[in-house]
Amino acid sequence: MSRDLRVCFVGDSYVAGVGDPRCLGWAGRLAAAAHAEGVPLTAYNLGVRRQTSADIMDRWLIECSPRLPEGVDARVVLSFGVNDAMYENGGQRVAPADSVANLGNLLARAAERGWRVLVVAPPPVADAEHNARTAALDERFAQTCAASDVPYVRVHQPLYDNAVWAAEVRAGDGAHPGAAGYDEITALIAPRWREWLSG
Amino acid sequence: MSRDLRVCFVGDSYVAGVGDPRCLGWAGRLAAAAHAEGVPLTAYNLGVRRQTSADIMDRWLIECSPRLPEGVDARVVLSFGVNDAMYENGGQRVAPADSVANLGNLLARAAERGWRVLVVAPPPVADAEHNARTAALDERFAQTCAASDVPYVRVHQPLYDNAVWAAEVRAGDGAHPGAAGYDEITALIAPRWREWLSG
Repeated sequence: MSRDLRVCFVGDSYVAGVGDPRCLGWAGRLAAAAHAEGVPLTAYNLGVRRQTSADIMDRWLIECSPRLPEGVDARVVLSFGVNDAMYENGGQRVAPADSVANLGNLLARAAERGWRVLVVAPPPVADAEHNARTAALDERFAQTCAASDVPYVRVHQPLYDNAVWAAEVRAGDGAHPGAAGYDEITALIAPRWREWLSG
Repeated sequence: MSRDLRVCFVGDSYVAGVGDPRCLGWAGRLAAAAHAEGVPLTAYNLGVRRQTSADIMDRWLIECSPRLPEGVDARVVLSFGVNDAMYENGGQRVAPADSVANLGNLLARAAERGWRVLVVAPPPVADAEHNARTAALDERFAQTCAASDVPYVRVHQPLYDNAVWAAEVRAGDGAHPGAAGYDEITALIAPRWREWLSG
């Protein structure tokens, strides 16, 4: 009767919800809100700490495949980029052109399988130079998604201007918020997520 | 200063928390309780619907490896067996001897890597014959874990006698409880989990 909706949330530590004492992150908050709104779904959280788009390329299909069998309404929510834009050993962990190519490749492969995708922008940390690199990536990710007709949720700039997010990131490890910050990012994603789920 | 504790919860739909409107399942409830008790940890939920021990054998190491890097306090919580004991196409999906061998193999491979393991018994469903097969497996899993000196949490029989669990399973899909049932199973696991985490 009701559709069998299954969503894999694929990405980095923000997807995993690192720092959230409620252990939901934004992915869990979106899934619980969907249940409360009468849209039960099976949510699989596939966020992994420190992972770049290159790391995610290595595993996303292997991990999504057993979770999204034939016959279900199979969806993928993607979010990465903060680790790509991180400076380490004298350079950016992933060159911007490679991050963009990885996103394009992911979108193409998901489309081949008939998996509908929603992409969430990489959020800001407590480091201005790092954020400038992430913001540049955010702009290019938005273009890549537009070209593939995939919705892209622009949370980077709103969170940059969000006092709750900024305060919790600073009070925490310099990268991750606590429960209130995860509430904020969830509220930014929720309208597009609802629209995407109902489509 | 504080240890970097990372726990992969590996198993089936009960691990994934199917049926729980809060989208935590018992794994998320245990992780959130640990945070509340001053033991922050990174929890990775690797439960997948319909999976037997054979399915889990195919993926657990591939999925745990990127989540449990060198240098962290790496742990694995395992729970499966209800799908192994399911009748399908005229037979049990996995022969009991194979389920037991799969568990032994998993424990041996985790020990090689220095990953400490906790095993949680398969819970009861709303089908007496299925439960009898699961209970037989539960007994053999307990022996396998004892032989490997791995803690095994015997939730099967207590949940069989638990009115909240039974009522929610019957009111649901015949297999999974709702939020109150997940509270019950979490309460049964919590004491052994706390002891294991602190060890």
